[in-house]
Amino acid sequence: MKVFIAGIDGYLGWPLAQYLAARGHQIAGADLFLRRQWVEEMGGHSAIPVFTIDERLSAFRRQYHHDVLFRKGDLLDYNFIRDFLSDFQPEAIVHLAEMPSASYSMIDQAHAAFTQHNNVIGNLNLLWAMKEVCPTAHLIKLGTMGEYGTPNIDIPEGFFEVEFRGRKDYLPFPRQAGSFYHWSKVYDSQNTMFACQIWGLTATDIMQGIVFGTRIDEMRSDPVLRSRLDFDQCFGTVMNRFCCQTVIEHPLTLYGEGGQTRGFLPLRDSMQCLAITIEHPPQPGEYRVFNQFDQCYTVEELAYMVKQAAMEIGLNIEVCHYDNPRKEFEHHYFNPDRRQLVALGYRPTHNLKAEVIQTLEDLLPYKAHILAKKDALIPDIRWDGSHRRSQIIVK
Amino acid sequence: MKVFIAGIDGYLGWPLAQYLAARGHQIAGADLFLRRQWVEEMGGHSAIPVFTIDERLSAFRRQYHHDVLFRKGDLLDYNFIRDFLSDFQPEAIVHLAEMPSASYSMIDQAHAAFTQHNNVIGNLNLLWAMKEVCPTAHLIKLGTMGEYGTPNIDIPEGFFEVEFRGRKDYLPFPRQAGSFYHWSKVYDSQNTMFACQIWGLTATDIMQGIVFGTRIDEMRSDPVLRSRLDFDQCFGTVMNRFCCQTVIEHPLTLYGEGGQTRGFLPLRDSMQCLAITIEHPPQPGEYRVFNQFDQCYTVEELAYMVKQAAMEIGLNIEVCHYDNPRKEFEHHYFNPDRRQLVALGYRPTHNLKAEVIQTLEDLLPYKAHILAKKDALIPDIRWDGSHRRSQIIVK
Repeated sequence: MKVFIAGIDGYLGWPLAQYLAARGHQIAGADLFLRRQWVEEMGGHSAIPVFTIDERLSAFRRQYHHDVLFRKGDLLDYNFIRDFLSDFQPEAIVHLAEMPSASYSMIDQAHAAFTQHNNVIGNLNLLWAMKEVCPTAHLIKLGTMGEYGTPNIDIPEGFFEVEFRGRKDYLPFPRQAGSFYHWSKVYDSQNTMFACQIWGLTATDIMQGIVFGTRIDEMRSDPVLRSRLDFDQCFGTVMNRFCCQTVIEHPLTLYGEGGQTRGFLPLRDSMQCLAITIEHPPQPGEYRVFNQFDQCYTVEELAYMVKQAAMEIGLNIEVCHYDNPRKEFEHHYFNPDRRQLVALGYRPTHNLKAEVIQTLEDLLPYKAHILAKKDALIPDIRWDGSHRRSQIIVK
Repeated sequence: MKVFIAGIDGYLGWPLAQYLAARGHQIAGADLFLRRQWVEEMGGHSAIPVFTIDERLSAFRRQYHHDVLFRKGDLLDYNFIRDFLSDFQPEAIVHLAEMPSASYSMIDQAHAAFTQHNNVIGNLNLLWAMKEVCPTAHLIKLGTMGEYGTPNIDIPEGFFEVEFRGRKDYLPFPRQAGSFYHWSKVYDSQNTMFACQIWGLTATDIMQGIVFGTRIDEMRSDPVLRSRLDFDQCFGTVMNRFCCQTVIEHPLTLYGEGGQTRGFLPLRDSMQCLAITIEHPPQPGEYRVFNQFDQCYTVEELAYMVKQAAMEIGLNIEVCHYDNPRKEFEHHYFNPDRRQLVALGYRPTHNLKAEVIQTLEDLLPYKAHILAKKDALIPDIRWDGSHRRSQIIVK
């Protein structure tokens, strides 16, 4: 199948290109390399060194005997994305080209406005371009489980049947996002749903849990094929941050009480799910929503799992509670559905501890590299708009 | 009270400034005059001639013995709005400075992107500016009943109690907007709710029905104090368009079957409701949602009411069904609540026919002026992205 990946240089985009090429799909992709800039702006760098796009594309060719059709460009440049899609005529489009950090969107007015402008208008342009030049392609848009927030009822996959004052309807599930970034993803979902309604576009909207891990099997031992792995307060997601902290023997940083519950999945499961989604498109004109994660854990449970995995390879670390820079519930109900991907064949990896050990072993050679930017690990971006480094409140 | 009006030169902003000044409030306002440009772009002009802002402000001074503090500027210019709010220190802020047309947002990619960028980032900047320089002010943000769409259940005011799989929560009512414009208003509502949650801002989010009419009593006979009244396919709302069509003896243009049901209110009721909202702020840190309309009618009912009002002043007009350029339900359930404003003292004008006759009488002197741009009355912007003038399908 011809698959276009917007954001092909990123944490998910780069392994996805490989996962799909290994399965015989033909790949094109675009990137503007903003993720590389943002991480630098936050005083971080990828724990796993990242090579240039030219080096990456050469290694890709060697490994998969496949040329990726790559162009540098911006989804905010409508002509760029329309012309690229028109030339390539993809059957599937995976949209990974968004600013993906909650904290980054909360830094100040300029970062909030940048995030919503970049994400909402970029996605809107992609929808218009599809309508204009490849209206039968299947859009796989990456949203986040964070769009739902933490309601006190079960979370279905996108829609639910509501009974209200004796009448019924099947409606979009209410969204209660927790950052300007998460809201931007809600707006993308809503625009995408609407574009399918009025233009008959076909889309799967993926509400993804928090991804972690360094690799997929297809990369083998070639360092150029590895994905990036960030650990700064903005672009390091919680499990990856815990693993980097472990490697440099820094306390694991729980925000607040640590009872925040989220869905998680290893990078290899994310790739498996995306491939299943691409290979099982919805009906033409359908807009469907998948919740994509393996299992739900509290952040505290994860921290202790990482601690245990670390002990098995001879590392001893502390778990510490830091004052929470975010405004969020630290204990709450959380019970999302995850049915449709399983029905299509998704088999979760499940062995979380094995994934963590693999990740730690991949990161250990880069201990000094992580240590060089360890200040980036402690949050100072606060949801009240102020900037103050979080302190340890309970050991 | 010190009231800041963003969009003070517009259809609602200009009469609101007068309505509030007549009640002793102190007014400041900003505008970029984009509405004047957009209407021109659509080949229209205001049926009631609009004077320059300097002429308007002079007439305002004569009538109300009050100087409006006015500055020309853009909500997309963060420093402009922050500095203006910092200087004026408003107690209430009425946000009317958005691109308000569904059809305009559906013209093409550029207009869709402009609409969402202008509205979402403008509103986001206003929220950040409030947080920075006047965090205790009360924001009155104009949304639209169109944010809810036409669900098959009753529409509460913003939130509702949901029972799902045996558990309950009180959640935002699902939104199902019908244009990129309407979605932009949903995104503004969601950002505003979030800003209240995390920063303790105070806001009333008004889901307003379709406003019509030429005047409020305070304007008396001064033509410079009159509000604009547009009739082009984008900026002419349905009742105002019907009234202008009546005056030039053009058939009333129902889109499709005409069973589309909406909430309506005369301009004077809109002013009454906004003043009540300003004078009855919510608790500090509260985000509340008001549905603001008088009564619900089908568009066909309205057309025949206008026809009847016209006959009473000696005009005979036809009602015609045109092929519908929009994608919308032409028959549907629609039962929104409207409780909170009534509880605070809103008394609907109710005599719709008298309002229509007043509007027709105000418009009759401008018959030739309307005729000069009558082509702007027939829609050609279609929800499928094409451009074709609607034709009469049933007389």
